[in-house]
Amino acid sequence: MRNIRIILEYDGTNYHGWQYQKNALTIQEVVKKAVEKITAEKINLIGASRTDTGVHAYYQVANFKSKTKIPAEKIPYAINSLLPRDITVVEAEDVEQDFHSRYSSKGKRYRYVILNRKFSSPIMRNYCWHINYKLDVERMKEAANFLIGTHDFSAFKASGSNVKNSIRTVKEAVLNKDKDIITFEIEADGFLYNMVRIIVGTLVDIGCHKIEPYMIKNILESKNRNLAGKTSPPQGLYLLKIFYVNSL
Amino acid sequence: MRNIRIILEYDGTNYHGWQYQKNALTIQEVVKKAVEKITAEKINLIGASRTDTGVHAYYQVANFKSKTKIPAEKIPYAINSLLPRDITVVEAEDVEQDFHSRYSSKGKRYRYVILNRKFSSPIMRNYCWHINYKLDVERMKEAANFLIGTHDFSAFKASGSNVKNSIRTVKEAVLNKDKDIITFEIEADGFLYNMVRIIVGTLVDIGCHKIEPYMIKNILESKNRNLAGKTSPPQGLYLLKIFYVNSL
Repeated sequence: MRNIRIILEYDGTNYHGWQYQKNALTIQEVVKKAVEKITAEKINLIGASRTDTGVHAYYQVANFKSKTKIPAEKIPYAINSLLPRDITVVEAEDVEQDFHSRYSSKGKRYRYVILNRKFSSPIMRNYCWHINYKLDVERMKEAANFLIGTHDFSAFKASGSNVKNSIRTVKEAVLNKDKDIITFEIEADGFLYNMVRIIVGTLVDIGCHKIEPYMIKNILESKNRNLAGKTSPPQGLYLLKIFYVNSL
Repeated sequence: MRNIRIILEYDGTNYHGWQYQKNALTIQEVVKKAVEKITAEKINLIGASRTDTGVHAYYQVANFKSKTKIPAEKIPYAINSLLPRDITVVEAEDVEQDFHSRYSSKGKRYRYVILNRKFSSPIMRNYCWHINYKLDVERMKEAANFLIGTHDFSAFKASGSNVKNSIRTVKEAVLNKDKDIITFEIEADGFLYNMVRIIVGTLVDIGCHKIEPYMIKNILESKNRNLAGKTSPPQGLYLLKIFYVNSL
């Protein structure tokens, strides 16, 4: 039995996120069906990240066990021939038996894109959060620095999610502004449910002078979801990279 | 009677181009209907550029005569409230009676985006031309230089288009590569039908060593459409700017 890892890029606009749902179209379902067709087997497709409705991925990782004889380098072409244009396999390789897309992951990197101008953008409408009031990026940068390091991120976790351990280590949290586009990138050993989107919502509260940059420290310490900002919309979020011990 | 100029941004994916057609949805029709609704008048909406099906605009200019009392700065909000998310008015102002979006134009600038990598991109699928063989950007840059200046661009004009004068002056023609994205920008006092897309098709022939960079000179001199490359697909093309004597 082979264990095959694939790297996917997708536009999340038209899907109810990654994970299989009974009554809604998801990316996992579409890819799984394509893989089952080319392998002529029932397969279990394990994804590294359960991206939400509308969230995009430049780099999602998934793996499946299969007896297929298709060489790894041909697998992307085979699967892509059955995929819609908004999902593409960009890489495939044979990996060790114990590789698991989610459990073997050592970290992830996300990007969040904000368009900060008066009017929304038709071209970017599904690919950013449009904010029409002026954001002070210097304040947001200052605040982002407080995220770096090992913290309990309970305040930045969707209420209702019950993971045992809310401690995560943020390696990088950087903001950049280019004309009217603000890009936030964050890398950590793992993320809680909605963590990036709640962080961005909080940074925006700081950027518009609702709260002070240092408050992000207090919010972290409070472990209280109600003190953080609102969850930013999904279409500005991109899964950028997933890290593994023996990879890249 | 006021003469009102509006600046539009749009995603051309879902439209049969700018110009009104009897049996197909166009951007002109959608915008005109919105303007007629807010002014409660029949209006004539004059667009500066007849962008094709699938072509995008960051900056399209249009004007219309109207007796409306809506102040110019409120007009974008009024029109946008009736427009779909893929078309947005980003500016409106009162201009002189003799201003005509098309005839008063002194020049235009276009961008063309090529994605040069093995697999197509789900996220950029409607916003670039995907080319999966390696392009030599240095060769393309060299070739682009031959376009600058005043030339007869008959060879770069869609066959069947019969303008009287095919002489245009190209002010700038620059290529840039950032990772796997190649961006071409061209500015001229005017463009022939499909001129940018035929130029890009020809530059790609040069980038993949089909013809030599200097050949673009010979093609210009030949005035023969058959010697130039094929017309590149529309979704990589963006109308970036339109210039007027008294503006910007």
